Amino acid sequence: MVFLTRRATFSAAHYYWNEAWSAEKNEQVFGRCSNRNGHGHNYTLEVTVAGEPDAQTGFVVDLKWLKDAIEREVLSAWDHRHFNLEVPEFAAAIPTTENIAIAAWKRLEPAVRAAKGAKLTAIRVYETPEIFAEYRGEA
Amino acid sequence: MVFLTRRATFSAAHYYWNEAWSAEKNEQVFGRCSNRNGHGHNYTLEVTVAGEPDAQTGFVVDLKWLKDAIEREVLSAWDHRHFNLEVPEFAAAIPTTENIAIAAWKRLEPAVRAAKGAKLTAIRVYETPEIFAEYRGEA
Amino acid sequence: MVFLTRRATFSAAHYYWNEAWSAEKNEQVFGRCSNRNGHGHNYTLEVTVAGEPDAQTGFVVDLKWLKDAIEREVLSAWDHRHFNLEVPEFAAAIPTTENIAIAAWKRLEPAVRAAKGAKLTAIRVYETPEIFAEYRGEA
Amino acid sequence: MVFLTRRATFSAAHYYWNEAWSAEKNEQVFGRCSNRNGHGHNYTLEVTVAGEPDAQTGFVVDLKWLKDAIEREVLSAWDHRHFNLEVPEFAAAIPTTENIAIAAWKRLEPAVRAAKGAKLTAIRVYETPEIFAEYRGEA
Amino acid sequence: MVFLTRRATFSAAHYYWNEAWSAEKNEQVFGRCSNRNGHGHNYTLEVTVAGEPDAQTGFVVDLKWLKDAIEREVLSAWDHRHFNLEVPEFAAAIPTTENIAIAAWKRLEPAVRAAKGAKLTAIRVYETPEIFAEYRGEA
Amino acid sequence: MVFLTRRATFSAAHYYWNEAWSAEKNEQVFGRCSNRNGHGHNYTLEVTVAGEPDAQTGFVVDLKWLKDAIEREVLSAWDHRHFNLEVPEFAAAIPTTENIAIAAWKRLEPAVRAAKGAKLTAIRVYETPEIFAEYRGEA
Repeated sequence: MVFLTRRATFSAAHYYWNEAWSAEKNEQVFGRCSNRNGHGHNYTLEVTVAGEPDAQTGFVVDLKWLKDAIEREVLSAWDHRHFNLEVPEFAAAIPTTENIAIAAWKRLEPAVRAAKGAKLTAIRVYETPEIFAEYRGEA
Repeated sequence: MVFLTRRATFSAAHYYWNEAWSAEKNEQVFGRCSNRNGHGHNYTLEVTVAGEPDAQTGFVVDLKWLKDAIEREVLSAWDHRHFNLEVPEFAAAIPTTENIAIAAWKRLEPAVRAAKGAKLTAIRVYETPEIFAEYRGEA
Repeated sequence: MVFLTRRATFSAAHYYWNEAWSAEKNEQVFGRCSNRNGHGHNYTLEVTVAGEPDAQTGFVVDLKWLKDAIEREVLSAWDHRHFNLEVPEFAAAIPTTENIAIAAWKRLEPAVRAAKGAKLTAIRVYETPEIFAEYRGEA
Repeated sequence: MVFLTRRATFSAAHYYWNEAWSAEKNEQVFGRCSNRNGHGHNYTLEVTVAGEPDAQTGFVVDLKWLKDAIEREVLSAWDHRHFNLEVPEFAAAIPTTENIAIAAWKRLEPAVRAAKGAKLTAIRVYETPEIFAEYRGEA
Repeated sequence: MVFLTRRATFSAAHYYWNEAWSAEKNEQVFGRCSNRNGHGHNYTLEVTVAGEPDAQTGFVVDLKWLKDAIEREVLSAWDHRHFNLEVPEFAAAIPTTENIAIAAWKRLEPAVRAAKGAKLTAIRVYETPEIFAEYRGEA
Repeated sequence: MVFLTRRATFSAAHYYWNEAWSAEKNEQVFGRCSNRNGHGHNYTLEVTVAGEPDAQTGFVVDLKWLKDAIEREVLSAWDHRHFNLEVPEFAAAIPTTENIAIAAWKRLEPAVRAAKGAKLTAIRVYETPEIFAEYRGEA
């Protein structure tokens, strides 16, 4: 089994705000991230799939297919968007790096399974080069 | 003369929109960047000053001082902010990488000159690792 | 479960020397690293914790808290220090990247567990971009 | 147990072509990679070994030894070479990143085991910064 | 005046060989690069243009236009190609990083001038992260 | 004319201390860098030479020669050394990034001129990815 990873990047805006809390509590917990004018990041997304390389192609999956799937399932909805205002997953949930990684998994896992029979094994999201979250589909 | 550079990073949101234009023209010229919900970036700012290293310290300028000046003059006003909605320079001007570089120069040049007698020689701003603008204070 | 990582950097000096050995043997085994004037590195430390994102905050742990914990438990004792001469863990042990990773784990694991109930799952230390060691707390 | 990684780089040429297929099918499946004039990459190879740091040296393995083993077992045969035309593993198999990772494992695993009693745990190969494959020796 | 840079990447194969020389001399001068099976690199191309930001757009040039121009004038002819066998500029000249930078300038300079009235000021080509050449159009 | 750059890395220890000053003043001016146990860095050195590519080789200078010159003139004296204790240039001068850049120029400029007739145009030294100094040989 080989683990094959494709990296992609996108730019988005977000802020952290819990509607159930007062403004004071939001500022206390989320600090500068609670500014509701929003700020943003260049996110890096790493998608890892695992499987046996095919004997005919040497591919675990076709990387062109994987790139297109990432574009279609994730980037078309997230790139140059505001997570809080435009992305359905974050109508209620807070767009932290942790939650963004889970949301990317939910978008990509069915597509990878349906089209390829391959196994999605990890989604890693970098908010900055200093902060990243990884989700492996396990509770 | 030695050119000494300090790099800093900040995260901000922005969009591109010319109020004098129709929505159609804004979309045609600015594409996805015209989405007024905003999107954002991890910006990297490189500040270059030039001078003779001081015989006592070996410093062109004290890098701790330069870091604090960047924080005070630029990052405190721009980090975790929305350029279009909160940063005075961009009330009218469009927050392109080019204009952000010029604005950083205008904020830092007087501070460097006043406090140190050193010469600011370049401001470089990376919007992403693939796109950057450099301003050297020359018309 | 999501794995959340915070990266930090510090600069330190060290050398490799086994007091039980002759100078010849130290030079033979450790090569240039045995120079007892010391040399140094920009180390990068990656701290990974795992848990469920909190429903109220979307956080596995508060990254501001984690940054402060890394500063307090590790960087305040190691940054701009000489491992062999000033850091207690290396009074006897040799400050290899492997041992530095274990030492960072021992400093951070109790703090993460006590304060957050979260689980420290990995410490990765880069001595250079070409060399890194990872410790996961397992024998 | 600590996981210790050494990174190395090499440059090589390759193309993707399945001799059992028509030219049309090769072009359809492999796209631009099917150009038999070849193209190339700066590959990055990460070799991870695991073990207990030795009490005398603080080493899982001597990194100088590991660097030399990578040079001797892998780079001397692959660096500045054409995978399809000069590297025996790819006389029949297609030199995808997946297959290159498996081939590096086969070259290094016996050397690591024989000389050091250490355990090779992962080979990661980056074809570009955006694409990488990892093999951990498991079926 | 602001200097605006767009980075692009491509992968290509090449070798160094002077037809006027003996095989021995080629090997002596060019070392491993003289292997006529070819090897390859992930090249990074940085294209810098200079001008005043437009008052309406804030752009020195439209980066979408610049990206397309780089694709059309350079990458479509060089990406996934073999410099010696397929790229006309290198039918006679040796595809060193220096000559590749000059060739990229010759391809892009007329396009930038014709379409935008902007000034191409530098082409930088990285063969690896350790080696790069910059051409500024000056004898 | 083409500007050709070769990057190299080395690791060294240093501290900042002016013998003419009291301990108090040293600590006040140099902060944590005044710790005389020393600390260290992974330095990156970029050496830029300029000239016409040779018609026979396509080289401004032979990069193998340049790599060896950097090794012989600079790295053999600086790598895995303590700037203050072992490097003659810093017996009196403070090993700031600025002064290290000037010292590298003085070591390399005569060698480049003598051997190649090429022109050294810039030395850039990175102390960390955030701090670098460039010297171009001009007063």
